[in-house]
Amino acid sequence: MKTYPIYAAGEFITTQQKLEVKSSFNNEIIAETYLADEVVLNNCINKALKVSEELASIPAYEKYDILMQISNKINDNKDHLASILSAEASKPLKYAVSEINRAIYTFIAAAEETKRPPMEYIRLDWEPSGKNKEGLVKYFPIGVVAGISPFNFPMNLAVHKIAPAIASSCPIILKPSSTTPLSTLELANIINQTSLPKGAVSILPMDRKVGNLLVTDERIKLLSFTGSPEVGWKMKNDAGKKKVVLELGGNAGTIVTKSSDIDSAVKRCVVGGFAYSGQVCIHAQRIYVAKEILTEFTEKFIVEVKKLNFGNPLDINTDITSMIDEQNAIRVENWVNEAKQDGAIILCGGNRNNAFYEPTILCNTNNTMKISCMEIFGPVVTVEPFDKFEEAVEMVNDSVYGLQAGVFTNNIEEANYAFNKLNVGGVIINDIPTFRVDHAPYGGIKDSGLGREGVKYAIVDMMEPKILVKNF
Amino acid sequence: MKTYPIYAAGEFITTQQKLEVKSSFNNEIIAETYLADEVVLNNCINKALKVSEELASIPAYEKYDILMQISNKINDNKDHLASILSAEASKPLKYAVSEINRAIYTFIAAAEETKRPPMEYIRLDWEPSGKNKEGLVKYFPIGVVAGISPFNFPMNLAVHKIAPAIASSCPIILKPSSTTPLSTLELANIINQTSLPKGAVSILPMDRKVGNLLVTDERIKLLSFTGSPEVGWKMKNDAGKKKVVLELGGNAGTIVTKSSDIDSAVKRCVVGGFAYSGQVCIHAQRIYVAKEILTEFTEKFIVEVKKLNFGNPLDINTDITSMIDEQNAIRVENWVNEAKQDGAIILCGGNRNNAFYEPTILCNTNNTMKISCMEIFGPVVTVEPFDKFEEAVEMVNDSVYGLQAGVFTNNIEEANYAFNKLNVGGVIINDIPTFRVDHAPYGGIKDSGLGREGVKYAIVDMMEPKILVKNF
Amino acid sequence: MKTYPIYAAGEFITTQQKLEVKSSFNNEIIAETYLADEVVLNNCINKALKVSEELASIPAYEKYDILMQISNKINDNKDHLASILSAEASKPLKYAVSEINRAIYTFIAAAEETKRPPMEYIRLDWEPSGKNKEGLVKYFPIGVVAGISPFNFPMNLAVHKIAPAIASSCPIILKPSSTTPLSTLELANIINQTSLPKGAVSILPMDRKVGNLLVTDERIKLLSFTGSPEVGWKMKNDAGKKKVVLELGGNAGTIVTKSSDIDSAVKRCVVGGFAYSGQVCIHAQRIYVAKEILTEFTEKFIVEVKKLNFGNPLDINTDITSMIDEQNAIRVENWVNEAKQDGAIILCGGNRNNAFYEPTILCNTNNTMKISCMEIFGPVVTVEPFDKFEEAVEMVNDSVYGLQAGVFTNNIEEANYAFNKLNVGGVIINDIPTFRVDHAPYGGIKDSGLGREGVKYAIVDMMEPKILVKNF
Amino acid sequence: MKTYPIYAAGEFITTQQKLEVKSSFNNEIIAETYLADEVVLNNCINKALKVSEELASIPAYEKYDILMQISNKINDNKDHLASILSAEASKPLKYAVSEINRAIYTFIAAAEETKRPPMEYIRLDWEPSGKNKEGLVKYFPIGVVAGISPFNFPMNLAVHKIAPAIASSCPIILKPSSTTPLSTLELANIINQTSLPKGAVSILPMDRKVGNLLVTDERIKLLSFTGSPEVGWKMKNDAGKKKVVLELGGNAGTIVTKSSDIDSAVKRCVVGGFAYSGQVCIHAQRIYVAKEILTEFTEKFIVEVKKLNFGNPLDINTDITSMIDEQNAIRVENWVNEAKQDGAIILCGGNRNNAFYEPTILCNTNNTMKISCMEIFGPVVTVEPFDKFEEAVEMVNDSVYGLQAGVFTNNIEEANYAFNKLNVGGVIINDIPTFRVDHAPYGGIKDSGLGREGVKYAIVDMMEPKILVKNF
Repeated sequence: MKTYPIYAAGEFITTQQKLEVKSSFNNEIIAETYLADEVVLNNCINKALKVSEELASIPAYEKYDILMQISNKINDNKDHLASILSAEASKPLKYAVSEINRAIYTFIAAAEETKRPPMEYIRLDWEPSGKNKEGLVKYFPIGVVAGISPFNFPMNLAVHKIAPAIASSCPIILKPSSTTPLSTLELANIINQTSLPKGAVSILPMDRKVGNLLVTDERIKLLSFTGSPEVGWKMKNDAGKKKVVLELGGNAGTIVTKSSDIDSAVKRCVVGGFAYSGQVCIHAQRIYVAKEILTEFTEKFIVEVKKLNFGNPLDINTDITSMIDEQNAIRVENWVNEAKQDGAIILCGGNRNNAFYEPTILCNTNNTMKISCMEIFGPVVTVEPFDKFEEAVEMVNDSVYGLQAGVFTNNIEEANYAFNKLNVGGVIINDIPTFRVDHAPYGGIKDSGLGREGVKYAIVDMMEPKILVKNF
Repeated sequence: MKTYPIYAAGEFITTQQKLEVKSSFNNEIIAETYLADEVVLNNCINKALKVSEELASIPAYEKYDILMQISNKINDNKDHLASILSAEASKPLKYAVSEINRAIYTFIAAAEETKRPPMEYIRLDWEPSGKNKEGLVKYFPIGVVAGISPFNFPMNLAVHKIAPAIASSCPIILKPSSTTPLSTLELANIINQTSLPKGAVSILPMDRKVGNLLVTDERIKLLSFTGSPEVGWKMKNDAGKKKVVLELGGNAGTIVTKSSDIDSAVKRCVVGGFAYSGQVCIHAQRIYVAKEILTEFTEKFIVEVKKLNFGNPLDINTDITSMIDEQNAIRVENWVNEAKQDGAIILCGGNRNNAFYEPTILCNTNNTMKISCMEIFGPVVTVEPFDKFEEAVEMVNDSVYGLQAGVFTNNIEEANYAFNKLNVGGVIINDIPTFRVDHAPYGGIKDSGLGREGVKYAIVDMMEPKILVKNF
Repeated sequence: MKTYPIYAAGEFITTQQKLEVKSSFNNEIIAETYLADEVVLNNCINKALKVSEELASIPAYEKYDILMQISNKINDNKDHLASILSAEASKPLKYAVSEINRAIYTFIAAAEETKRPPMEYIRLDWEPSGKNKEGLVKYFPIGVVAGISPFNFPMNLAVHKIAPAIASSCPIILKPSSTTPLSTLELANIINQTSLPKGAVSILPMDRKVGNLLVTDERIKLLSFTGSPEVGWKMKNDAGKKKVVLELGGNAGTIVTKSSDIDSAVKRCVVGGFAYSGQVCIHAQRIYVAKEILTEFTEKFIVEVKKLNFGNPLDINTDITSMIDEQNAIRVENWVNEAKQDGAIILCGGNRNNAFYEPTILCNTNNTMKISCMEIFGPVVTVEPFDKFEEAVEMVNDSVYGLQAGVFTNNIEEANYAFNKLNVGGVIINDIPTFRVDHAPYGGIKDSGLGREGVKYAIVDMMEPKILVKNF
Repeated sequence: MKTYPIYAAGEFITTQQKLEVKSSFNNEIIAETYLADEVVLNNCINKALKVSEELASIPAYEKYDILMQISNKINDNKDHLASILSAEASKPLKYAVSEINRAIYTFIAAAEETKRPPMEYIRLDWEPSGKNKEGLVKYFPIGVVAGISPFNFPMNLAVHKIAPAIASSCPIILKPSSTTPLSTLELANIINQTSLPKGAVSILPMDRKVGNLLVTDERIKLLSFTGSPEVGWKMKNDAGKKKVVLELGGNAGTIVTKSSDIDSAVKRCVVGGFAYSGQVCIHAQRIYVAKEILTEFTEKFIVEVKKLNFGNPLDINTDITSMIDEQNAIRVENWVNEAKQDGAIILCGGNRNNAFYEPTILCNTNNTMKISCMEIFGPVVTVEPFDKFEEAVEMVNDSVYGLQAGVFTNNIEEANYAFNKLNVGGVIINDIPTFRVDHAPYGGIKDSGLGREGVKYAIVDMMEPKILVKNF
């Protein structure tokens, strides 16, 4: 069994507190690592502060090289990284490979954006006091950044904090999920091989108490959190003077209209609903189907869902496997059973086996049921009919969340209406809400979050504008 | 004596709680108005929510017309508005006129920006999953906005919240300072004459308890506060899920180098140090002068400061008058006296007469004295020598604040160094830190604030991006 | 009868050569003006050169004021200007009013863009040689601009050259059409009342020989021509070192699909086909209708076209009146007759009466007929069926021209296909190709032109970027 | 001796007409290649047209990969490519290496820009006719591009046409200089190894007669020429309807002021004046030195110039070697002798040996001498004093050319004045006019050219905007 030291400001260290990383699929211990304590964390913050100036003085071509080297090395180790990710997160290998691929692209995007920070050159003579004056607006690193990333995309959601931090010259302390710390510790190893100044990146698994210092320590200037809404919003209030970016979850809605290509919609909804057992922020939890095609859609959907292969995450043919832990599988089981008692009908699935929960489709649901109004974060999907398109939009909007929504339609008016009226951060036409590319703005409104990620957007958040007023 | 009803969601109303507005110059009551209570506020928030959709559906050319009408009507009533502002704030008339002029420009800028919201059209095929997809990013109003504005620029700092809110289609509840509510109530009258939907703007003087509901009410999506650091940072922690923009104060530094035009620097420092008795967020509080020119600068500076005319704010020849209230004048007096006891030397001024405090220049100060390290918000300026330019930058940076800084120099290296190293939101070359034009980004770092104002930047803060992913 | 002196570098002058302006509707002489000779032109170019520096030094807020004053004065004289335009161009009054309104907006757009020239601030350290260097890109006026504008929009197409020229600080010599010089001479009067430096604008009717000096004179740095393709392309070859922008014509296609709102399409096609007798660059000359709805569309179209009121252009109820001159009406008559001989069927119209040619709809046409493959610039429209959408796109593309195209559809795939495949400068979804707003990019490809107008785009063409490389 | 087939639309072919490539240093034949005839060229244009659609449909991530592969392969073959470039162009190896390095960066920049084409999303409702309409502006490839590149940067100036053409999906026919065709034929080999569709790039040496078809053939939509002013401007008039971009030469001026770092200025002027024997478009031909430091500057300058090593271009220690051919060396000799007769004084150099011309500094010159007012394109520099900075600017501007200028100063006012007043495309503060980074806008005004290169800017030139007007 491998032991992973943790990455503390350029040094790989061990601590007194061991952390075992287990597979939820077979309960085997995959590896052992360590939890950082307060002393380690404090040391990393101090080194981060110290390295700030050096980091900011790296020219763009060197920063570009460093980030491209990281991207290339991830590419070179793709198989290895994917299998570690697959094992620690019980994520089917094919999805693990795709996540590693995305991390490669995310670093490329960051490499490129480091050359293109937001800079402005503006006239100031819009009013007489600005006569003979011009303004240069340049963005400077905000300071030390804390990133807290979740178990479900242990690599790429951490990379969405690390890569922009490097690009914007902010030292970063990243706390990975204690359930899935290995991918980022592998990444630490790659980062450490580059000429990036030591101290610029720390990867520190921590328990909640120590981790919470990232929220409260005033030396940290930005907290970027991806995780559950309850935890996230609490952090915002505890964060003192620092900026906070929250990427939380939701109960994303999908609308399938008469004018859509039903087979394509079915195929994509299988992915949106059950990839990684729905443990995805933009899991396609609620599907609203035009009543005229409800039967056809539902029948085809059930057929396709039943084809999903259950198996070992490390098997490339596996479509679905255990959830992250049994506790979550039990939670999902309870929610589904509650819904059933309240009248929901299980069209397929509905059974649990240890940490595995079957892909489950429900109908006859309503939005007072937890499986509909809360974030299920499991392999459960509701399918409900709608009459008019406007009603479907209203049903999607009838949620405290607002992350993304998918709309299958070939109708221009519907697409425009959806874009203007859906209260979400992203509307995906002819695809599932689960769609994301790494350079595009991503994030939610309402309880789903605050701010946007996506490489360029994260970089902007990590920088402070400063205007130079030129007199000439 | 005139009575001003308050502006509650399109209606001019009175309440049980009267509010007297007094001149600090002669203690005369200028006018009477009212404080909104919880019921009024709640009603305004509800109407704001109701009007949101109508507001968002106004085409740009109509929104432009509305904002230009407001600008034009302010222009038409410039003298009237300036004298009210002058009276309520004890602001010398010439500065009041200049503030009204700026409000005119601020509304023009907002009118224009309403046509140019941030919109993006981007390729998504940077990675294979984005093949045949493109993204449209459009910005939508964030929701109801609360604005809290201070006494010192009763018109234009309120306009910096109201005009962007109208431009971005966010209904706004503005709480003016209870000391100086009249300018914005005059503005309410102008706004009410346009076709802007009723409910889009409310101007509500409130006591602190009621006003605090703007901070905690979750129906409000953005709080934009301009005021003191202590109050502002406290609000951030109480603000729940809403976005917070803080425009706070500072103890701005100015550097005068050998290569500068001394006479010009002196002339501008008189304005930066004593305009409106230094009751300005970007008051030029600390002046650092190259030791070779210290004597010349200081002598000339004293001469010019002594020329400042004390008088009735409403007299166009008045340069300086009473502070906003006696309490603040006493505070300034105490701080100066403390500094004197600790070794500071008063080069001119140093006396108080009721609410008036003399324009005061100190030397031999250090940064443990309140008059140096805290925000004096009064007519007091320190002048200290420096040896090397880098030291001057360090002295300016040696502060918990970081709003703006002025640098008088004709040396390219110094200007570049200043831009890169001064930890502030704005570096003004060959002018005082007190410089601002209304469309440029403005705001501080460190304890001086969070986020930026300036019409375009405020509009961005008041909007949420939403991406449409097109499949083609 | 009024006599209009011409506007030569700030002076209203007369010359030896009189120019009569006649109504084609009733052959009455409307007014008299003058043709500039070589001496006058030379003098205007010299004064333009002399005023360049002064013009460039005007701060943005003053330039804004000047342009807004022009816009406001046009607004104040809207009725007067519309009736002059209507008379000189035989343009139905309602279209003349709409043109004057557009001129108002065009000047507003120019006023605003003068504050927002393209300026860039970029990192240069993408390669080692750029280390510690940054670039400022600022745009400077290109120099003296010559504008040549056509008869059909005598005001607004001239304004599309004059307003950007003022905004970009380029002196301009505008040659209006000799048929319709009065609108711009009225505009000259308005411009002359502002504080714009004399010499910045000249409005000079000229015969072709003198006018051609605008093409060949090397002191002129940009030629902006709107007119016929033959003349325009010839100019490009004669233009020496100067930049050339050509806004020429076309035979714009419109596609009406099954998913469209037929009644709306019919209504808009009447405007696109017959407004101002089709004497419009983006005249909707060729209409392609899905075969399933051909009969319905055609019948409704004929009914609506027959309702068009013929009358005096100055009558507000007139929909259609004489063409610009009899010679053009005869040309149209000949082309239609030729088409008829080759098998085309006249569905309505087809007769001429002096300069008036009836609104005419043809079917059974093909693209070897002049009425289809050449620019008819008259009130003639072809209606042809299509089977698949791709074929319709191909038919629209089967032209030497490529200005704009209209597509009536509610189908996302068709809209995307149209955007990607139509070889034109603009694709208008659910409207006629005749659509234009004045701040948007406008212009053609293939034989329809070179470059784009639209205020911001014209300004860019009139400026030269200059990079400042900062070493720091 | 190696034989290079030419690269005709994806095939390496030979023709009847052989072309010998000789070293001007030792008159040895380096290699043999071929001249394309009309048939070959015509075939390449046809294949370019055919491949256009396929080329345009390549997703950004694939285009990025192709361009990065090219960049990486150039990097892998850097030494080989540099020595070929050095040999064919008689360019000292160290400069050849630097040119190959720049080609690597140019392809990276193009790879990145392919993901970021100019795309706009704008409101159209600035006027009532735009109500409920929005505009998407997308840029499409302009069509087949012809590039004509000069001998002096045989690789990178060709790459500045090829890389943007690939990035913008325009097929390109590149005509390298017949003197130095080998670098680009090596590049052809690299390009051919990628998956770029065959036909997208052709590299065809041609004689002037055949090459001129690139100017006149109307199937070509853009001509991008880098070379001499006479040839370039003639082409503009012969180019028919196609767009023309001209990157021509100049007689760049450099100003050295009192506030500058003289030693640094001297060091950089040696490079600017004599790198590659001044056969550089932005050769620092005219140096204006503040009279107070003239003696010091000149003395130091002569000392440094005399240190330049003459030798075989392929020797890494060689600083200077033969010019491109004896004919040019003779021309330079004649110009210097003429100047001498007219009073110029030779401070060093002044002798010719076959194709080698000594690094030569002249003083006592005036701007009627060819060595001053024309483009010398040889190792000759004039040094003249100035009194006031404004005069120096005037002397630099006193030229028919306007490419770039260098200004050595530490004075803000001078830098601002220079930026605003120098009539050039680029002002380089504290460096020579010879400075260029490949992603920045580059190009001249006056007789020095038309349009700008620099990857992003070249891409824009190679694309046509098309607006989609959305109705919603």
